[in-house]
Amino acid sequence: MSPNSEAVSLPDHPFIPEMVRQTRAFDSYGVNEDLGKAEILEPYVVTKEQRREMPVIGDPDEELIARLKAYYSAIAMRIEAGCGKMAAPMFNITHEGFGRVIISVGKLMVLDRSLRDVHRFGFPSLEKMCEDADKLVNNALKLVESYPDAAAA
Amino acid sequence: MSPNSEAVSLPDHPFIPEMVRQTRAFDSYGVNEDLGKAEILEPYVVTKEQRREMPVIGDPDEELIARLKAYYSAIAMRIEAGCGKMAAPMFNITHEGFGRVIISVGKLMVLDRSLRDVHRFGFPSLEKMCEDADKLVNNALKLVESYPDAAAA
Repeated sequence: MSPNSEAVSLPDHPFIPEMVRQTRAFDSYGVNEDLGKAEILEPYVVTKEQRREMPVIGDPDEELIARLKAYYSAIAMRIEAGCGKMAAPMFNITHEGFGRVIISVGKLMVLDRSLRDVHRFGFPSLEKMCEDADKLVNNALKLVESYPDAAAA
Repeated sequence: MSPNSEAVSLPDHPFIPEMVRQTRAFDSYGVNEDLGKAEILEPYVVTKEQRREMPVIGDPDEELIARLKAYYSAIAMRIEAGCGKMAAPMFNITHEGFGRVIISVGKLMVLDRSLRDVHRFGFPSLEKMCEDADKLVNNALKLVESYPDAAAA
């Protein structure tokens, strides 16, 4: 079966439709326009073997950066859905594949992550992707609860 | 008199030595190594006429981006000096000369600015530069006072 097969089943998780939406939003050249949901999310799955084969030299390619931004933007949207306040991501990615991403709600930084190995961005499975996202979203929502004034500022 | 003359008098303001330090720190190629303090700070002064003559097309040059980063890093250091907590800047500058800069203390964003017209970054005078910096620093310090828990997180 081709890895592009539509037979891939998508996890029943609210992060999935958000990821499809964000991935389409970051697809500025429309290269994924004709793809189905499963096909659009497929590049987020990177197996151990695939990781090993990925070169980490040179600039991370544009489509990969777009996926990384879509992922954290989807997380921002889930945070927004969870607390009812605008959540905005900001990225700083260097040519070498390092960087930092933050998500802010009001004046509160609800997520602050160093990025390493951007070249190899991906997850063992879509289930694991949703699980990781849940952790980041829940952690952010706890921060909003802990510092409501800064989050409302 | 040449505009590079050492006769330029520097304002007696704590922001000045910090700017000299940060400008030297961002001078990765050592192009300013042999310059005096006044000469190092000279490019931050951009008169109205100079602004008009500056092209805003194409990527802002590296030295200009270095000056912008030095400026906000110097502000972060002044915030740090004022509140005794680490203040870290983060930049996102697009090729078109737009962008955003934030400075965070703990989980609090004490500065959050959209950048426009990066190509024309500069101040009418060094005095005005110090004045503007004071405003940003004082505003940031007020935020730290208002949201001490988030700033300590």
